[in-house]
Amino acid sequence: MTDRHHLERIVAAALEEDAPWGDVTSEALVPASATGTASLVAREAGVLSGAEVFAAAFRLVDPDLLVRLRSRDGEPFAAGEVLAEVAGSARGILRAERIGLNFIQRMSGIATETARYVAAVAGTAARIVDTRKTTPGLRVLERQAVRDGGGHNHRHSLSDAVMAKDNHLAFLAGAGLSLTEALTRARAVLPHTTHLEVEVDRPDQIPAVLAAGVDTVMLDNFTLEQLRQGVELIRGRAIVEASGGVSLDTVADIAATGVDVISVGALTHSVRSLDLGLDVSSGLVP
Amino acid sequence: MTDRHHLERIVAAALEEDAPWGDVTSEALVPASATGTASLVAREAGVLSGAEVFAAAFRLVDPDLLVRLRSRDGEPFAAGEVLAEVAGSARGILRAERIGLNFIQRMSGIATETARYVAAVAGTAARIVDTRKTTPGLRVLERQAVRDGGGHNHRHSLSDAVMAKDNHLAFLAGAGLSLTEALTRARAVLPHTTHLEVEVDRPDQIPAVLAAGVDTVMLDNFTLEQLRQGVELIRGRAIVEASGGVSLDTVADIAATGVDVISVGALTHSVRSLDLGLDVSSGLVP
Amino acid sequence: MTDRHHLERIVAAALEEDAPWGDVTSEALVPASATGTASLVAREAGVLSGAEVFAAAFRLVDPDLLVRLRSRDGEPFAAGEVLAEVAGSARGILRAERIGLNFIQRMSGIATETARYVAAVAGTAARIVDTRKTTPGLRVLERQAVRDGGGHNHRHSLSDAVMAKDNHLAFLAGAGLSLTEALTRARAVLPHTTHLEVEVDRPDQIPAVLAAGVDTVMLDNFTLEQLRQGVELIRGRAIVEASGGVSLDTVADIAATGVDVISVGALTHSVRSLDLGLDVSSGLVP
Amino acid sequence: MTDRHHLERIVAAALEEDAPWGDVTSEALVPASATGTASLVAREAGVLSGAEVFAAAFRLVDPDLLVRLRSRDGEPFAAGEVLAEVAGSARGILRAERIGLNFIQRMSGIATETARYVAAVAGTAARIVDTRKTTPGLRVLERQAVRDGGGHNHRHSLSDAVMAKDNHLAFLAGAGLSLTEALTRARAVLPHTTHLEVEVDRPDQIPAVLAAGVDTVMLDNFTLEQLRQGVELIRGRAIVEASGGVSLDTVADIAATGVDVISVGALTHSVRSLDLGLDVSSGLVP
Amino acid sequence: MTDRHHLERIVAAALEEDAPWGDVTSEALVPASATGTASLVAREAGVLSGAEVFAAAFRLVDPDLLVRLRSRDGEPFAAGEVLAEVAGSARGILRAERIGLNFIQRMSGIATETARYVAAVAGTAARIVDTRKTTPGLRVLERQAVRDGGGHNHRHSLSDAVMAKDNHLAFLAGAGLSLTEALTRARAVLPHTTHLEVEVDRPDQIPAVLAAGVDTVMLDNFTLEQLRQGVELIRGRAIVEASGGVSLDTVADIAATGVDVISVGALTHSVRSLDLGLDVSSGLVP
Amino acid sequence: MTDRHHLERIVAAALEEDAPWGDVTSEALVPASATGTASLVAREAGVLSGAEVFAAAFRLVDPDLLVRLRSRDGEPFAAGEVLAEVAGSARGILRAERIGLNFIQRMSGIATETARYVAAVAGTAARIVDTRKTTPGLRVLERQAVRDGGGHNHRHSLSDAVMAKDNHLAFLAGAGLSLTEALTRARAVLPHTTHLEVEVDRPDQIPAVLAAGVDTVMLDNFTLEQLRQGVELIRGRAIVEASGGVSLDTVADIAATGVDVISVGALTHSVRSLDLGLDVSSGLVP
Repeated sequence: MTDRHHLERIVAAALEEDAPWGDVTSEALVPASATGTASLVAREAGVLSGAEVFAAAFRLVDPDLLVRLRSRDGEPFAAGEVLAEVAGSARGILRAERIGLNFIQRMSGIATETARYVAAVAGTAARIVDTRKTTPGLRVLERQAVRDGGGHNHRHSLSDAVMAKDNHLAFLAGAGLSLTEALTRARAVLPHTTHLEVEVDRPDQIPAVLAAGVDTVMLDNFTLEQLRQGVELIRGRAIVEASGGVSLDTVADIAATGVDVISVGALTHSVRSLDLGLDVSSGLVP
Repeated sequence: MTDRHHLERIVAAALEEDAPWGDVTSEALVPASATGTASLVAREAGVLSGAEVFAAAFRLVDPDLLVRLRSRDGEPFAAGEVLAEVAGSARGILRAERIGLNFIQRMSGIATETARYVAAVAGTAARIVDTRKTTPGLRVLERQAVRDGGGHNHRHSLSDAVMAKDNHLAFLAGAGLSLTEALTRARAVLPHTTHLEVEVDRPDQIPAVLAAGVDTVMLDNFTLEQLRQGVELIRGRAIVEASGGVSLDTVADIAATGVDVISVGALTHSVRSLDLGLDVSSGLVP
Repeated sequence: MTDRHHLERIVAAALEEDAPWGDVTSEALVPASATGTASLVAREAGVLSGAEVFAAAFRLVDPDLLVRLRSRDGEPFAAGEVLAEVAGSARGILRAERIGLNFIQRMSGIATETARYVAAVAGTAARIVDTRKTTPGLRVLERQAVRDGGGHNHRHSLSDAVMAKDNHLAFLAGAGLSLTEALTRARAVLPHTTHLEVEVDRPDQIPAVLAAGVDTVMLDNFTLEQLRQGVELIRGRAIVEASGGVSLDTVADIAATGVDVISVGALTHSVRSLDLGLDVSSGLVP
Repeated sequence: MTDRHHLERIVAAALEEDAPWGDVTSEALVPASATGTASLVAREAGVLSGAEVFAAAFRLVDPDLLVRLRSRDGEPFAAGEVLAEVAGSARGILRAERIGLNFIQRMSGIATETARYVAAVAGTAARIVDTRKTTPGLRVLERQAVRDGGGHNHRHSLSDAVMAKDNHLAFLAGAGLSLTEALTRARAVLPHTTHLEVEVDRPDQIPAVLAAGVDTVMLDNFTLEQLRQGVELIRGRAIVEASGGVSLDTVADIAATGVDVISVGALTHSVRSLDLGLDVSSGLVP
Repeated sequence: MTDRHHLERIVAAALEEDAPWGDVTSEALVPASATGTASLVAREAGVLSGAEVFAAAFRLVDPDLLVRLRSRDGEPFAAGEVLAEVAGSARGILRAERIGLNFIQRMSGIATETARYVAAVAGTAARIVDTRKTTPGLRVLERQAVRDGGGHNHRHSLSDAVMAKDNHLAFLAGAGLSLTEALTRARAVLPHTTHLEVEVDRPDQIPAVLAAGVDTVMLDNFTLEQLRQGVELIRGRAIVEASGGVSLDTVADIAATGVDVISVGALTHSVRSLDLGLDVSSGLVP
Repeated sequence: MTDRHHLERIVAAALEEDAPWGDVTSEALVPASATGTASLVAREAGVLSGAEVFAAAFRLVDPDLLVRLRSRDGEPFAAGEVLAEVAGSARGILRAERIGLNFIQRMSGIATETARYVAAVAGTAARIVDTRKTTPGLRVLERQAVRDGGGHNHRHSLSDAVMAKDNHLAFLAGAGLSLTEALTRARAVLPHTTHLEVEVDRPDQIPAVLAAGVDTVMLDNFTLEQLRQGVELIRGRAIVEASGGVSLDTVADIAATGVDVISVGALTHSVRSLDLGLDVSSGLVP
């Protein structure tokens, strides 16, 4: 969970980006004294994520704006549902509206898509996880959105787990080093808390990797048949992660092979913002 | 165009986000002395955007890395094409890889999708424009991506043009003010360089808005028939913008109604990263 | 209008600049328990600007300081008038005093000078506007001060309107391009909301510029006679802006030529701080 | 002297302030390939300050721009003199022009005004010094400008010297403390390197202040006759500073009274930017 | 004293450093609804410093956490004493615990060690002062800790007093300049508030330095006998500072030589964190 | 390893902290044209850490300063050894000296102390690791220093591994939850890459913790006999970490009990800066 001051730093930067010289529309059109109420309405069904960020946008613009959240992160909602209400200065509401929406629509988009993947693998042991293919500057929020959708996070950054991928292996080969040697040396220098994961592209690479004592083997772009083979080889000796070409069409079959973890880049690299809107109504919330 | 120092500030923040404590994988596995070459390869066709940002990620990680761009922002490319090459320290390349890709895949995804919309309205006078539904913190880059795709930018922020939307009108109504009065008063206080745009939801609202002397009328969620009506009423007196429910399926028909501008939120609020990858090859670029 | 968090960021930076290691005078001389009241007193007449910024300086230093504003931005005041009162910890008041004054004296200096220009053109249709000749880092506040003085803002930055000046034209000429071609091409790529202004140095340049379809023509360093000529040529086809050599002595005559806009660099590039002082009185405000 | 990275941080912030979304004029009008030369020309005589800051603006926008300084900070120049030349990309030059000028015009305005005060007291022992009435965020540059004009700096901030002014004394009185006690206690806690200055408003306050052992006595708003009296009382026991109501008309007479230091708030609180301009010429500097 | 916003900026940065992606332990293990109380307990005796910083860590993590300080900066405490209590959300307390402790343990370590030096010189006129050998980024807090321990601060930075040390003299010699000339020239350009201190390595250097009129002479690495000689030569003409090789074993003897100031790098360059711990107890503080 | 831009950000902040208004000593005393050479000399033996940070301080102050490193991070050196040489502008060298030293002395102090612990456990299987008791803002450098000294890092932050300590268990007990339940639930929500470590205070707590399936058991403040017991119980089922009361006197005995990991808070919470000095010599390095 993001600390309040951390989250406010992100939101404040977004607000400044959106109005370096103020909101010329509201300031020119709407009297400073005008007040009102607005409702955050779901125009389609989904899973909520980002309610605190949404509220922070209004609070930062005007500490006197009242934001009442009616739903919580991680909760599903139906089209038409009112998710939150904002009351107070009209200029304040209009100033924060787009930024509040940009965050909550994007995060709820991620949570909703994640929930679809999670639903698709229900009944299997597989968990759906994200990747480092996140939006620069927003990873901490996108990770939360994946959790809100029922998914799990993968390592957060290059610093908190080892993942040796094809390009690492290519460089090792170029330097005349065997993977086993490299992994052994790595274990010796890494923190004892560091998880060690290695990507393989073909089933025949698995035994060597297992021999080197890794914690997770990632099977990249394996066929379903290869995945089943991989699971058989690895099960009990390491965690099995499937990766590559995962979509809502394929994920259930992949999960059925018995893999433990399915990583889905699309959860964050290809986001569709959920359709949430802010509707102004008349009169102040009592 | 973003200044070099501005762009580097964004990229440096993304790099720190991705490795607060360094890249434990490369540092543990790959010798500091290892060098090599990697190619940025298009795994699908598209339009390039973000080449300078991609290059900046490598330069910031290690000023001695050589980045040779083979294609330029705004240029289309085919699947399989090599778009850039990077040469130098293996650790440097691996450290910057994901962040460089995160930027260029996202920006090229926007440029490519924009190009599809632009192609769909070819032969009409309509221009495709973006909205303020951008990723917090990345608007300046997403705007460039839209231009690289052949689209146009709408106002950049709340500060550089007036756009009176439904919620503004609702607050005005709540405060007992007529739109015409409000617009007249706004003109009197706004900079003479400020463009004034008003959104209408129904054709019968158009005459009053025109009477108030706006620069652009935005027709929100109009049917094709209503759009044609709108164009007829407005043409020659203001710019006509169509908005709402625009998709690749509908955009050609909308353009055919004679509108000047079609704004497409999806260009930036629902991005699919383009599939670009970095392939390590052996040996240094000569 | 500047958002509260934006404004606080500017004021906090000024406070840190003024006391990187604390206020050694108050901490050494004045007991931590001492309290009192101070009045912000106008030592000369003027127009107020920056009251919120002044208050923020005290609030940031000590949230328990009470600041009571007695006058509002944009209001004229007489010499001797009490504009605000501060009550609370003596150390807090002394710590924030100079920074609060530096902001409000500078902003009120701008507002007051602007009001003189505005008064000088009263009864004409001309508006007084600022330029980009602002203090680095303080533009958003200086723009507000101009508005508080009854003036108008010009474009806020290089990003929100086109202004082609002599140096642009020189480079175009150097590159063998005609202004008309350049403007036509510019229109085709610029946002539809972008205002297009061109500077001319001689009346004979006007027809070509009008033919290119600009929104504002800026007549730079024209004589009064040339201004009248310019107004006659342009009126009804574009906005007319006069610029160059504008002073309180000349502005009324310039306005009388019928120009719409008079830009005055001196409003912000040559500021005289207004003489406002903080007088400590005894006892706490009840 | 400001470190290069410190100075670049200030200039980069000013550049971003001036073009959050790029320079729409140059990008739309001027070809990316256009190059040229521009000269920084003095439109009036003065003393130069800010040459390095001016150069930094261009270097930050485009490291390939060549800036050749023809004059150095602190040097006087005549109207018409070329102070610097810039060569390279036309877009780069136009992008940085206004910001470079805003800094150098303001700093040279301060240096030139300072030089006038310094000349007015030539032949006396008095030095001209600045105050804390500086522009928020720019103090380090304004201090340099004062030195470039031949003036001296006063304490830089609230942290690096004690100055007990009327408001401190008022609070002390309110707390029932005598100045002598307070100063004695202050000496006991302050760093041994801290200079102790006290402001007096009337000659009869001087003996008590001297008795307390201060380093400088500031005579605030004294008549010339009172200043002479003050000098006589203080000379040899402390430094004498005159302050309040100092102008170019009065400064020579004040200096003639024998005071050591004359502080002039107007040096920085009421700056007139010097008239320097950037003239584009054709062709590249060889 | 550090301003609240300045202090919070430092603490917020430390909190982000300690949990870029949240506190995975508490979020996974401890229910969001769990609450409780924790006591800050001294595991050894010492002098308190950093109570406000400790409190700020908890307040920034969760404004609803209650922090009750039972002791104040500068106060001695015994082993076992409860110095503060925190009550509220368990997750909030656990999130802030380590960072709050890191600050207060380090600052109290400095204050406690300083108090030992101060006690060792009790009864002499010597004051114990710190140096610029502080932790990068934390100088403002470490200076406060020295004061809390009863010590004094030396100059805060390179900007607020002159100290000519051996390396300055070596460069002057290399440039063929005498120290006397250099000091005379320095006096002429420095602010009148600037204290001038010069380091000497041998007693025979003292007369020349005194002749140049310095404010403090620093005797570096002198024997006790040399210190006594130095005091005799300098007393009444400048402040005498002893420096070099000062330890708790030697400081009393050094003080007994009659020096005014003893600077101790070890106060901040070699800190032992004081052993303070946070003990969770059950139930909420009433 | 810290990225260059990350490291430069830390060093630039330290430089600004040390001279907000420039280096008044060098600027007043040393001619701008003076140049020279200085050597970084070890005044005591140790292990080097921070060479790149040291070099960055000089490079940031003046890119024309030449820094030649003669030793590398992680290498031991003898008293008297020259570790680096700096050549160029005298003012630049003097400006950066203290900050360069502050970093490298502190980091080398940590590396040297770490090396002592590592040497003390040589021949056993135990590794020496650091903790989160680091200096706020400098953790990334202090972690590197521990590695340079031959030690290992523990988890970097609250985000990259679970460590359930006594206070977590107290809150769990307060909330009526068993540790086993809590750990099981934690596993279900944590990333599959997250290492799970639990602290126990008594041997009888071990079986329950092992049953819950943790990766590391931390034995806090165990006697040597208890440690041996713990190792016997845990070996082969989890990693064993010893913690609490570890000193150079006790560490060898602790290692001999067979524990895998010994965490030593003192490595970073109680740092003694190593005695390194910068000696100016005459003439430039050829």
